[in-house]
Amino acid sequence: MTELSLRDAQRLVLAHCAPLSSTTLPLQYGYGRVLAASLKSTRPKPSYSQSTRDGFAVPGVSAAELRDRAVTFRLTGEIAAGTLESGALAPGCVMRIMTGGMVPRRCERVVPFEDCHEEGERVVIPASALRRQQTFIRKKGSVMGRGRVLVSRGTRLQPDHSLLLAENGYHEVPVYRRPRVWLLCTGSELVKPGGEILPGQKISGNSVLLSGLLEADGTGCEVADPVPDEAGAIGSAIRGILQQEPDVLVTTGGMGPGKFDLIEQVFQELGGQVLYNSLRVRPGKATLFGLLGRVRCFALPGPPPAVRLLYHELVAPALRSLQGFSRPLPLRVRAWLSESLCLRGQGVMNMKGAVATLQDGRLVVRQAGFQDRVNAILLFSGRKKTYRAGDTVSLHLVGPLA
Amino acid sequence: MTELSLRDAQRLVLAHCAPLSSTTLPLQYGYGRVLAASLKSTRPKPSYSQSTRDGFAVPGVSAAELRDRAVTFRLTGEIAAGTLESGALAPGCVMRIMTGGMVPRRCERVVPFEDCHEEGERVVIPASALRRQQTFIRKKGSVMGRGRVLVSRGTRLQPDHSLLLAENGYHEVPVYRRPRVWLLCTGSELVKPGGEILPGQKISGNSVLLSGLLEADGTGCEVADPVPDEAGAIGSAIRGILQQEPDVLVTTGGMGPGKFDLIEQVFQELGGQVLYNSLRVRPGKATLFGLLGRVRCFALPGPPPAVRLLYHELVAPALRSLQGFSRPLPLRVRAWLSESLCLRGQGVMNMKGAVATLQDGRLVVRQAGFQDRVNAILLFSGRKKTYRAGDTVSLHLVGPLA
Repeated sequence: MTELSLRDAQRLVLAHCAPLSSTTLPLQYGYGRVLAASLKSTRPKPSYSQSTRDGFAVPGVSAAELRDRAVTFRLTGEIAAGTLESGALAPGCVMRIMTGGMVPRRCERVVPFEDCHEEGERVVIPASALRRQQTFIRKKGSVMGRGRVLVSRGTRLQPDHSLLLAENGYHEVPVYRRPRVWLLCTGSELVKPGGEILPGQKISGNSVLLSGLLEADGTGCEVADPVPDEAGAIGSAIRGILQQEPDVLVTTGGMGPGKFDLIEQVFQELGGQVLYNSLRVRPGKATLFGLLGRVRCFALPGPPPAVRLLYHELVAPALRSLQGFSRPLPLRVRAWLSESLCLRGQGVMNMKGAVATLQDGRLVVRQAGFQDRVNAILLFSGRKKTYRAGDTVSLHLVGPLA
Repeated sequence: MTELSLRDAQRLVLAHCAPLSSTTLPLQYGYGRVLAASLKSTRPKPSYSQSTRDGFAVPGVSAAELRDRAVTFRLTGEIAAGTLESGALAPGCVMRIMTGGMVPRRCERVVPFEDCHEEGERVVIPASALRRQQTFIRKKGSVMGRGRVLVSRGTRLQPDHSLLLAENGYHEVPVYRRPRVWLLCTGSELVKPGGEILPGQKISGNSVLLSGLLEADGTGCEVADPVPDEAGAIGSAIRGILQQEPDVLVTTGGMGPGKFDLIEQVFQELGGQVLYNSLRVRPGKATLFGLLGRVRCFALPGPPPAVRLLYHELVAPALRSLQGFSRPLPLRVRAWLSESLCLRGQGVMNMKGAVATLQDGRLVVRQAGFQDRVNAILLFSGRKKTYRAGDTVSLHLVGPLA
């Protein structure tokens, strides 16, 4: 099996992660879910012609009248915003109308109050204001007609989308099923979180890191008890998980140099199909993706920095694709380096956890320290060794800006 | 009661939203919660002196030996990464050591393989490499000593923080309680989501908008059934909610011109203390904040655009403050306008829902259209009427970048 580039690995993973089945949910439970069908507008927007100014609703005026410097009208009524039946204008008459108010029948334009002169029941409007191109009317359906796509399939529903759908009378939405994810950390030193910690043992950092990332991404996961570095124990743990019919299994540890490649061995014994078992990236070279029946399996290495990068670059896109996101890969942007940086291991793609922030409207980025929250991944081709402060670089945004 | 500026309103709200009580959670359930105490490192980082290169661990060399061009050593062993006991170097002897490997006692430096010449059991190292300033050793505790602050009080726990805490042996974390929020939409035309919709009725858009925003912010809420625009109905709905002992009550509708100010009337009848009932902002002027006993109450107006802006600028900061966030206000940044923009209503602060994106490393922003997901709020002082494409403007980031 050959080593893959990160990009080829992403392509291969996504090719095995077509959207799961879909279901229907009440609109108020749709937040964060991905729409399984495009939904269309059920009414024109605006639903009636409305004024865009506080002013007078004016009927059509003859060319003869427009020859005078001003035209005098009679004031016959008032239309508040929210009034849903405003009647019709009689010839030579105007009505006071508020912004958002329904334009009456036979109204050809609204003239803002400040352009008019009001004397009791008489309103005098200069001819120039009656000739103006701008009518201050937002016509029924001018923003959007009926039957146009409101929210597209593959969109993650945000509160603003739900508002739009509610306004169009939708009270249910078709969404994709979320993947069921299981997490298994391997390592003889690992203790279940909450369990007693004896000397030489530790809580699995990868377990809290990954369960947090999976929760942040809206998927969540089931966490299996950690298993020691023994093929038998790993095999029976995986068999137990498979009985729960997950969509995705993520393991950590048991990959790569310095240890037996226990995970790959067990994976083969269980009849798994390996799709890659090595990547041309640093860190994260020793990692596997494959299928155990219909279960997509990601075997990540042990060191948390590699786990975090491989999660964002491969596991998270897979989960987004299974949920039907139309753009599963992380957002790639440019930024300015705020500190210089020296890479090791040339000729192979280098990834670095990073912190991106906005300064005076520009995105700046630096390599993350161990106490930082990583919100970006710097991607270096491996052709260059040294980068200086001020250089522009390419990165994936994987979390909110600090 | 005088009208407040947005900034004064924020100050007043935050002054009434001190952090709630705290509790202790298992680390794996801490994601998204706010730390109620600063947690300190329990071990030095790194926990042992380690090599930063693949090379040879070399003992101290006498000045006499360094006068030669090269020094010859005897190879006596190998130290893999992860080996936790690596013995001591004998004089004149070296050991092979891998990156991350524990540096043996009496080792003074690591010399990378590529600088050395290996012949069977003999390793020849040039004197220049033995005189170098850089030792390729990361000393125990050099990154962080014991007892230093790892994660500060007021930090929202992200997966990276949980990893750091797990590595330091924490399996529980002290976090603030989350506020209990109730939502009540008023309006005679409103139907409970999921209920039958008769002609002239509609699902409350504000109810799905706000419950989505509250879920996105990690608080969630209880949604009361909508009530018609009648003081009696509103009063009994609020009394019912108060029996559930919420921390925060948010209402929509029943505020502002064109309707009776039913909410304020009911609020007074229930013995509420009004802290503001009008703001110098557009939209969103007609809004109230007050206390009903210990319950913080936000009465928002009816139109969803104003609801969204007031939520992000006032309600969300209040909820973050109650949860103990050290920085409850939204992130204020600068950006370039990508489209020109004309404001109405001068002399008062204008807020506009907006979409911020990154283009070539710069933050650009435009006013949101009705189908857009709002992720930023443009803030205009009201002193200027027209802004052109390319102008820099001030905004609050309130959601992930598109």
